[in-house]
Amino acid sequence: MLNILSVKGSVCATDGFFADGIFAGLKKSGLDLGFVYSKTPCIWAGVFTSNTFKAAPIIHALQNKDKKINAILVNSKNANALTGDEGLANINEILGSLEGNWLMSSTGVIGEQLNTQKIKSAIKGFDFTQKNHENFSKCILTTDSFEKSVAFECHVGAEKFTLGAVAKGAGMIAPSLATMLCFVTTDINLEQAVLQECLQEAMEHSFNAISVDGDMSTNDSVIVMTNQKSSVNDKNAFLEALKMALHKLALDIVKDGEGAKKLVAFCIKGAKTKADAKRAGAFLSRSLLVKTALFGEDPNWGRIAASIGASGVECCEKKLKISVNDVVLYDKQITMTKEIEQKAKAVLQQAEFKITCELNQGREEFTSYGCDLGYDYVKINADYRT
Amino acid sequence: MLNILSVKGSVCATDGFFADGIFAGLKKSGLDLGFVYSKTPCIWAGVFTSNTFKAAPIIHALQNKDKKINAILVNSKNANALTGDEGLANINEILGSLEGNWLMSSTGVIGEQLNTQKIKSAIKGFDFTQKNHENFSKCILTTDSFEKSVAFECHVGAEKFTLGAVAKGAGMIAPSLATMLCFVTTDINLEQAVLQECLQEAMEHSFNAISVDGDMSTNDSVIVMTNQKSSVNDKNAFLEALKMALHKLALDIVKDGEGAKKLVAFCIKGAKTKADAKRAGAFLSRSLLVKTALFGEDPNWGRIAASIGASGVECCEKKLKISVNDVVLYDKQITMTKEIEQKAKAVLQQAEFKITCELNQGREEFTSYGCDLGYDYVKINADYRT
Repeated sequence: MLNILSVKGSVCATDGFFADGIFAGLKKSGLDLGFVYSKTPCIWAGVFTSNTFKAAPIIHALQNKDKKINAILVNSKNANALTGDEGLANINEILGSLEGNWLMSSTGVIGEQLNTQKIKSAIKGFDFTQKNHENFSKCILTTDSFEKSVAFECHVGAEKFTLGAVAKGAGMIAPSLATMLCFVTTDINLEQAVLQECLQEAMEHSFNAISVDGDMSTNDSVIVMTNQKSSVNDKNAFLEALKMALHKLALDIVKDGEGAKKLVAFCIKGAKTKADAKRAGAFLSRSLLVKTALFGEDPNWGRIAASIGASGVECCEKKLKISVNDVVLYDKQITMTKEIEQKAKAVLQQAEFKITCELNQGREEFTSYGCDLGYDYVKINADYRT
Repeated sequence: MLNILSVKGSVCATDGFFADGIFAGLKKSGLDLGFVYSKTPCIWAGVFTSNTFKAAPIIHALQNKDKKINAILVNSKNANALTGDEGLANINEILGSLEGNWLMSSTGVIGEQLNTQKIKSAIKGFDFTQKNHENFSKCILTTDSFEKSVAFECHVGAEKFTLGAVAKGAGMIAPSLATMLCFVTTDINLEQAVLQECLQEAMEHSFNAISVDGDMSTNDSVIVMTNQKSSVNDKNAFLEALKMALHKLALDIVKDGEGAKKLVAFCIKGAKTKADAKRAGAFLSRSLLVKTALFGEDPNWGRIAASIGASGVECCEKKLKISVNDVVLYDKQITMTKEIEQKAKAVLQQAEFKITCELNQGREEFTSYGCDLGYDYVKINADYRT
């Protein structure tokens, strides 16, 4: 009997975890450096970008994948990506000045070296008794417009475990990871291999099912750390809670997609294979013509059909059905009327809705999530660095 | 000895070909219906969209691929795509009222039936002695801002052949075809199989190497028709002229990309395989973050590197070099300076430039073409149908 309750506290909800964010002078103002800390060394699991140019902090994390860690140091403004050996040396220099074993995680502009002096002098001011998760989630933001966090207390019979998580990411979001960082703290009593397995499974319907702009970052990282202090060692219970947490954060990231006003679930049903269902959804959620039609609140099902046809999945014109929420837009049996179009337009004017494409080729289905693309996306990205 | 001279006349440059465009009432105003006509039946070659949902005119053309044709009827405003058996029956009804063998080609909104009455009554006014290629190229435009045509007189020793071509297309442009139509008329004396071979080869570096928005249409068609009246039967000479013509039209389409202000050649060099060079170029030319950085004239080489890394081609950070025209932006040996950044910015302010990515993994190379993405793309596509 699993009972999952939402609680406050984000990454600090789990006993023994602390966090804070401070200003180190990397940005012109605001918070730009923070930590998640546990006095007890933690086993950890991670999933990182599949981009060939992995940022230095990811290379460092992969070099330390079998070590227990106490903490993660996170900075924004500088991605420490494509920074070569010097980028990696800078991480070792910075983390060498801290007690215990640390990982580092970075987000921001590619191709500039970290200012190690600023960071080393700022971390002298860290207070490891702080549970200031608000400041931590602020310090990792770049173009995000709101903070994204979640925490659950999970009761399994008379026992419990806790899970808290925070994420950032608003652009460069594509299936197979995104420019996003996500940190999860927990006390679940599982081995590292099982923790890694759970994380990989929970990725499928969360961070691997979303798209903001189809671009893939050099820095994407999802890290789960556990101090193993709970008496619960139930893998399924943990997996369910982790799935819920990551799904919630993934949808928050799409909602906060750069300039996005609409969160759209692209539900592909009746696909011949699961791969087809994923592929068609990925094409739809990335199509510029679909995204701009969503921005224009235009029930232009032709663009949806063209995008599914372009994906190359098994489908045929006579079996295809397209609906927005419960309004059928395309079906060989129906003729489009002004009334249907108006009903559809009313759905598209909402902030969240579902587009269902029934391929009628088999029984597999998958839901991908995407957003509209409007003027603000161009504005944010035309001159991000200034 | 091949001598290729530019001449006027577009699709009417070749003796025996006629064309015109008229107003049939499909659009609210302007020209929307036209023809390319030859009294002598022509053999033809065609390349069509690989979208699963092929529009009715493409299904019709494929059904008639071994027949000689006299002419092509083209309409804009309505794509006659996802229109089922009725869409195909409408084509047969319309073409049945014309003398000789015809193909049809359509561009416009998906999912609406053609108004056969309007079209049949308008074609009664066709004058097959017109060489009004300007009106023909106007009648096939949708969101295009200028007409795209070319014609060559090709001298092979003392003999000659002529080739004229017109294209349309400004959005839904992706490698592996685009929402584009292209019609080529010629008198080259080649067999159908050879004509088809030439067309397919000429596609690689032209229409298959361009991207405006990465979307693939249901209606893309490139059709070459020849009356075989020239004495020239030199395949290589024809291939060279056809490549030049299609390359010119393909670049015109990118220049006229919806809202685009810049034509960018993405030149991938030193790739391990040709497929890698094509794939990296396709990723770059489609990346929203790259396209918006180009719009912002921001020499953000980090986005270029991230996009190449995301493509999964063989590459490594230490061997990569990125330049815009002759300004090196990234190379392990150099440090970015304000001066380099300013020089690069000056290049990006031009209307046409080249981004070269030297992977240093092998000897293969490929150039893809793309454009920037700005506010106008969103404006054009947010409510295309109204």
